[in-house]
Amino acid sequence: MLFNFWVVPMKSKKVAIIGASGYSGEELVKRILNHPHVELVAVTSRQNAGLTLAQVFPKFASHPLTRTLRFSEPTNIEALAQQAEVVFLALPHGVAAEYAVPLLNAGCTVIDLSADFRLRSAAVYKDFYAHEHPAPELLAQAVYGLPEVYREVIKTSSLIASPGCYPTSILLPVIPLLRAGLIKATGIIADSLSGVTGAGRKAEVDYLFCECNESVRAYGVPKHRHLSEIEEQLSLAAGTVVTIQFTPHLIPVNRGILSTLYLTPKEALTTPSEAEALNAQITACYATTYGEEPFVRVLSGKALPDTKNVTDTNVCEIAWRLDVRTGRLIVISAEDNLVKGASGQAVQSMNLRCGFPETAGLM
Amino acid sequence: MLFNFWVVPMKSKKVAIIGASGYSGEELVKRILNHPHVELVAVTSRQNAGLTLAQVFPKFASHPLTRTLRFSEPTNIEALAQQAEVVFLALPHGVAAEYAVPLLNAGCTVIDLSADFRLRSAAVYKDFYAHEHPAPELLAQAVYGLPEVYREVIKTSSLIASPGCYPTSILLPVIPLLRAGLIKATGIIADSLSGVTGAGRKAEVDYLFCECNESVRAYGVPKHRHLSEIEEQLSLAAGTVVTIQFTPHLIPVNRGILSTLYLTPKEALTTPSEAEALNAQITACYATTYGEEPFVRVLSGKALPDTKNVTDTNVCEIAWRLDVRTGRLIVISAEDNLVKGASGQAVQSMNLRCGFPETAGLM
Amino acid sequence: MLFNFWVVPMKSKKVAIIGASGYSGEELVKRILNHPHVELVAVTSRQNAGLTLAQVFPKFASHPLTRTLRFSEPTNIEALAQQAEVVFLALPHGVAAEYAVPLLNAGCTVIDLSADFRLRSAAVYKDFYAHEHPAPELLAQAVYGLPEVYREVIKTSSLIASPGCYPTSILLPVIPLLRAGLIKATGIIADSLSGVTGAGRKAEVDYLFCECNESVRAYGVPKHRHLSEIEEQLSLAAGTVVTIQFTPHLIPVNRGILSTLYLTPKEALTTPSEAEALNAQITACYATTYGEEPFVRVLSGKALPDTKNVTDTNVCEIAWRLDVRTGRLIVISAEDNLVKGASGQAVQSMNLRCGFPETAGLM
Amino acid sequence: MLFNFWVVPMKSKKVAIIGASGYSGEELVKRILNHPHVELVAVTSRQNAGLTLAQVFPKFASHPLTRTLRFSEPTNIEALAQQAEVVFLALPHGVAAEYAVPLLNAGCTVIDLSADFRLRSAAVYKDFYAHEHPAPELLAQAVYGLPEVYREVIKTSSLIASPGCYPTSILLPVIPLLRAGLIKATGIIADSLSGVTGAGRKAEVDYLFCECNESVRAYGVPKHRHLSEIEEQLSLAAGTVVTIQFTPHLIPVNRGILSTLYLTPKEALTTPSEAEALNAQITACYATTYGEEPFVRVLSGKALPDTKNVTDTNVCEIAWRLDVRTGRLIVISAEDNLVKGASGQAVQSMNLRCGFPETAGLM
Repeated sequence: MLFNFWVVPMKSKKVAIIGASGYSGEELVKRILNHPHVELVAVTSRQNAGLTLAQVFPKFASHPLTRTLRFSEPTNIEALAQQAEVVFLALPHGVAAEYAVPLLNAGCTVIDLSADFRLRSAAVYKDFYAHEHPAPELLAQAVYGLPEVYREVIKTSSLIASPGCYPTSILLPVIPLLRAGLIKATGIIADSLSGVTGAGRKAEVDYLFCECNESVRAYGVPKHRHLSEIEEQLSLAAGTVVTIQFTPHLIPVNRGILSTLYLTPKEALTTPSEAEALNAQITACYATTYGEEPFVRVLSGKALPDTKNVTDTNVCEIAWRLDVRTGRLIVISAEDNLVKGASGQAVQSMNLRCGFPETAGLM
Repeated sequence: MLFNFWVVPMKSKKVAIIGASGYSGEELVKRILNHPHVELVAVTSRQNAGLTLAQVFPKFASHPLTRTLRFSEPTNIEALAQQAEVVFLALPHGVAAEYAVPLLNAGCTVIDLSADFRLRSAAVYKDFYAHEHPAPELLAQAVYGLPEVYREVIKTSSLIASPGCYPTSILLPVIPLLRAGLIKATGIIADSLSGVTGAGRKAEVDYLFCECNESVRAYGVPKHRHLSEIEEQLSLAAGTVVTIQFTPHLIPVNRGILSTLYLTPKEALTTPSEAEALNAQITACYATTYGEEPFVRVLSGKALPDTKNVTDTNVCEIAWRLDVRTGRLIVISAEDNLVKGASGQAVQSMNLRCGFPETAGLM
Repeated sequence: MLFNFWVVPMKSKKVAIIGASGYSGEELVKRILNHPHVELVAVTSRQNAGLTLAQVFPKFASHPLTRTLRFSEPTNIEALAQQAEVVFLALPHGVAAEYAVPLLNAGCTVIDLSADFRLRSAAVYKDFYAHEHPAPELLAQAVYGLPEVYREVIKTSSLIASPGCYPTSILLPVIPLLRAGLIKATGIIADSLSGVTGAGRKAEVDYLFCECNESVRAYGVPKHRHLSEIEEQLSLAAGTVVTIQFTPHLIPVNRGILSTLYLTPKEALTTPSEAEALNAQITACYATTYGEEPFVRVLSGKALPDTKNVTDTNVCEIAWRLDVRTGRLIVISAEDNLVKGASGQAVQSMNLRCGFPETAGLM
Repeated sequence: MLFNFWVVPMKSKKVAIIGASGYSGEELVKRILNHPHVELVAVTSRQNAGLTLAQVFPKFASHPLTRTLRFSEPTNIEALAQQAEVVFLALPHGVAAEYAVPLLNAGCTVIDLSADFRLRSAAVYKDFYAHEHPAPELLAQAVYGLPEVYREVIKTSSLIASPGCYPTSILLPVIPLLRAGLIKATGIIADSLSGVTGAGRKAEVDYLFCECNESVRAYGVPKHRHLSEIEEQLSLAAGTVVTIQFTPHLIPVNRGILSTLYLTPKEALTTPSEAEALNAQITACYATTYGEEPFVRVLSGKALPDTKNVTDTNVCEIAWRLDVRTGRLIVISAEDNLVKGASGQAVQSMNLRCGFPETAGLM
C-alpha cells in the first residue's frame, strides 16, 4: 500500500447552532458534525436543555462529540458569541431576528434559516408574516443565501438569510430563464409538493402519522408566506415586478419537494421547429448557468426529477418539457427540503463565507 | 323490541366482470358483491382461472359467494353473454373493444372501464393510444359514463364507456364553470396527483414499494393519454375546442387523486368586489349543478379537499379559491381513483341503466 | 325488469356515542350510521361540541344525518340517558366508569370501549392502570364483550366491556387451543405489531408522521396494560393462572394488528407423524370453534394472515404452523385494531344484546 | 484561518463490484465511492451493461466518477481480476460461488454478500438452499464476515462471507450472552421485522407498493433460509448445537430490521434482586464486548431501539429488559438491513482486510 502526502487544513472555525432540535436543526447538526473544517461548540434548545446531542439525536451517537456536547438554554447569547465564530439560527420567524442583533454586534457571522432576513422590505414582511419586523435596520445588510445566484456577496456578508425550501425549488429553475429572457415574467405558476418535515416537529393533530398517511392535500391557498421571497427574487431577476401563482401541497413522505412550474416562452411556441430552437436555447441557458454547479443537476433524455434521487443530498434536480399543443414550457425540480431547501444550503453559504471548498461537508 | 316483517327483492340483474383481478376489478367485485339488486354470476381472469374469488381476494372471503364462484378463462364469451345481463369490462385498452362486440350482439349491457369507447373519434384514439381503434363502428353508440353530465343517455345506453380516473377529477369541477360561462376555455392547467393503484397491479420495478415510497415524481409529461378524453369532454361543454395542460404525478399512497386546476375567470378579477361577485356566481353555479348530487361534495368555509376524506367512497370533493393577486381561479378536487374514478362510477352507471336507485351499493 | 315491494323495519334502537372524536369513535360512528336497525341520536365530544358530524368527519358527509347531528358536551348524562337505549363509551380508561353508573341506573345498555370494566379484579386494575378503580361495584356485573367466547351472556348483559385490540388478536387464536388442552398454559409469548391509530388521535411528537414513517419500535416492554385482561381471560380458559410474555411494536401503517404467538403443544412434537396428528387436532379444534363464526377466518394452505386482508372488516384471520425442529406451534392472527379490535366488535355485541342479526352493519 | 499539515494515504486499493444494481449493490457503490482509501474500477450488471453509474443511480451523479464509469457484462472475470484487488460479489446465492473461484485463483480478495460461503457444511447448505453447493472445496477457507466476532481472522482471509441481514441483528445481541453463560442455549426465539428492500429489487407483485403499503405479514414460517447461518454461529458461540425459532415479517418501510429476542436466563429470574444481579451481569457483558465497538450501540435508560435511528448507518442498536413475571430476558436490536446488514458490514470487513481504519467510509 502506497501513501501520498497532501495538506488539509485543521478544524478552523467554531460553530454554534441556536434552536437545534427541529428537523432542519437536526440535519444541520449532522452536517456540521461531519464537516472537515468546522467544530461544533454549542447547541441550544429550550426543550432539550441539559441533554446531550446523543440523547436527543440517537442516530448521531456514533460521533464522539455527541456524547459530551449538551444543549444549553438559548439565554446567554453574549457568552455564546464569545465561543463561536459562525452561528446558525434554526428558529421560528420573528424569533430569529432578536438573536441576530447581539450576535452580529459581537462579530459573529450569522446564518439564519428563518424568514426574518430574506426580504428587503419590512412592509412586505409585515404583510406576509402579520407582525412588525423585529429588526428592520438589518434588512439592508442581509444577503439572500442562494449561492448559485449570490455567491460573491455571500462570501463577504456577515448576515446570510438562507432561503426557504419552496423558494429554492422554484428560484433555481426559473431565474436563469428569466434572466436570459426566454420566458415571460407573467403568468408563472408553481405547483409544489412537500414532505411532512416541512411542517416542523410540532405536536399538532394535522401532522400525526394517521392524518398524513394515505392523504394528499393542498394548503395555504392562495397566499402562502413563501410567496413573498419568491416574488421578490424573481422580480430582481426579471427586472420587473413578478407576481406568481403558488400552490403548496402536503404529501406523505418525510422529505422532499417537487415543484412543477408552468411557464410561458417569450417567443411563440406552436411548431416543432420553434420547439427545437427553444429547446436548444434552454439547454444552453442551463448549461451556462449550472454546467459547473456542484449542486444543480439538469437532467437530459427521458429522465424526470424524483425526490428520492435527491434525498439526503444538497442537489436540486431540474428537467423541462416543451408543449407545442399549449405553447407552454413545463419545468420540474426536486430537492430535499431539509438539505438544499434548508440546512445543506446554509452550510454551502458558510463554506463560501469562510473560504472553505464550497462542497465541504456536503458530498 | 319489535320486529317488522319485510320482503327483499329478488336479485334482479345478473352481472359478469371480465378481467376482474386488477385493482379496479377488485373494487368492482366488492361493490357488486354488496349490491342489493344484482347477482355476480361470472368473473374472468387469465392468470387466476380456476381459483375462487376468496382465494384471489381474501378480504372478501366473508361473503359466501366468494367461496364458490371461480374465475374462468375469458374465452367463451357467447356462454358468458347467455349468463349475464350486464357485463363490466375491466381490461386494458385495445383488448376491451374485442369483447364488447359479441356481448353487445348478444344483447348484454356493456360497461367498459377501459379507454376504448371514451372518445368519439377513432383518429384521436389512434393519435393517443398508438394503434388503430379495434371497433370504430361502435364509437357512435357509446355514451361517456359520467352520470353527473350524461345521466339521461346513460339510462338508455347499452355501451357505457366509464371515464378515466384523472378525467373524472377534472371534468366534474370544470364542466359546470365552462357551461355557465364563468371561465375562459383557454389556458386551463390541471396538475394532478395520483396514488399508485392508478398504475395497476403490474409487476414492474417502477411500482415496487421501495421505488415509490419516499418518492414523488411527474410522468407522462406533457401528453398523457387521458388528455384526449378530457379535452373532448371539455370541448363539448365549452362549445369550442379546448386544449389543456395536464401534468400527472405519482405519490406514495395506495388510493386517491387530487387535482389542482388553474382557471381564468371570463371577467377580470382584480378587486375584492369583483372577487366577491364571482365567488357568489361560482357558489350558485356549483349549487345548481351539484346541490342534489349524491356523489359530489362542494366544500365551504376553510375546508380544502383531502384524499383521505373520499377514500373508499364514490364522492368527488371540490373547493375553490379566487386569487385577486393573479386574477386566477384555483379549483381543487379529490376522489378515490378506484371508486369515483373507476369502479364506483361504473356501478353508478349500471344503477342508472338498470333503473336501480342511483346510490345502490355505493353508500 | 321486475320489482318487488318491500318493507323496511323502523329503526328500532336509539344509540348514543360518548367521546366520538377519536379513531375508534370515528369508526363506531361509521358503523352506527350505516346500521340497518339503529338510529344515532347523540354524539358527544368536548373538543368538537357544537360542530356537526359532517364537519368533524367529512368522509361521512354523504349520510344526511351527519349534516344535522351535532356534537354536544358530555355533561347532561341524564338527558342523554332519556334519549338513547344503547350508549357506547369511547373514552379514556378511568373516565368511562364515571359515565357508566348514571347510564346503567337510567336503564341504558352500556357498551364500553375503554379498559374500565374488562377486569374482574379492582386490585389488578389498580396494579396495571395505576389508579383506584372508579366503580368497583360494577365489575361483577360487567361481561367481557368477546362474542365468540361470551355470546350468550352478552345477550343479556347491560354492561359490556368491549375487549382491547391486542387482547382480541391474542385471545381468539389461543383460547380454543387452551380449552381443548392442545397447548400448555405456560411459556406463551405474544409478539404483536400495531398500526398507529392504536395510539389514538393525540397530538404527541412520538406519533407525528415523520417520527413513525420509516420507523419500527417496540414499546411498553415488558408490562403493557393489556396484559392484565389477556392473562385474566387466558386463565379462565385454561382453568389455571396463565402468565404470558407480550411485546407490542409500533409499525407505520394506519390500521391493523398482527400477532405472532409462540405456543408449546401439550404433547411432544418432534416427528413428522406427531406433527401430522397435532395438525389434524388443531384443524378440528378451530373448525369446531370457528367453523360457523362470521368474523373468524381460519386460513388453510400456504396463506398467512396479512393485515391488508382484514382492514375495514370485523374479521380476525388465523393461521398456524408446526415446527418439528423446535417443537413449537406458531399461530399468527391479523385484525383491524379499530374494527374487530374495537368498534366493530362493540357493534357485534350490540347486535347480540339487541337481538339483531349478529352481522348487521358489519358486512 | 490557520492551517495544519497532516498526512493521508492516497487511494490505495482498486475495487470491483459484481452485480451492483440491486439495493445492496447500490449501497455498496455509495460507500465505495465515498471511501477515502479505495478506488472503484469496475461494476458489472447484466441488465445495466453499457450504462454509466449516474444513469442507473441518479442520486450518486454528483460524484464525477459516476459519469464515466459504466456497467459491464459480468463475463470476462479474468480481465476484471487483473484490474481489481478487492472484489465484492452482490449476486444471488448459487451464482456468487461461480465467480469466487476464478477471482481467488487470480489473487483477489473476495467479499461475498450472498449466502454461498456463510456455512461450513455443504450438506446444511443443500438442506436450506435446495441445490448442491457450487464450490464446497472453498467452504473451509471462508471466514464469516462479522467483524465484532471474527475480526482477527477477517484481517487475513481472502474469502469473506458477509453475513445476512437477519443473522447480524440476531447474532450481535445473542452471542455475547451465550459466550458469557448468561442465557440458556435452548428455547431461543427471534421475531424479526424487515423493510421491503430485504426482498431485493425484483419485479414481483408481492412487493408492489400497493401490496406492501398498509400491510404487515409474516413469511418463511417456520424455516427461513437464514436460520442455517444463525444456528451455526450460535452453536459455535454456545459450544453446543443451538436450534432457534425464527419468524421474519415484512413491514412497510424501505429499510431497517428490528429483532425482538426471547431468551431464558441460565439462573432463575423470579425476584427483583435476582433481576438486579442479572441486569448488572448483562450490562457488564455488553460493556466488555461492545464498549469499544464503533458500530454496536447498547442503549441505556428508557430508550429502546428504533430503526429510524440506525437508517443509513452501520450501527446495530441493542437494548434489553428483564421480566420477573415470566423469568425471561427480552433483547431488542435494530439495524439498517442494507448497511450493517449487508454493504456497510462488507466494507467494514474490507477495511480490516486491507489495513484501513475500521470505520473508514462508514461514519
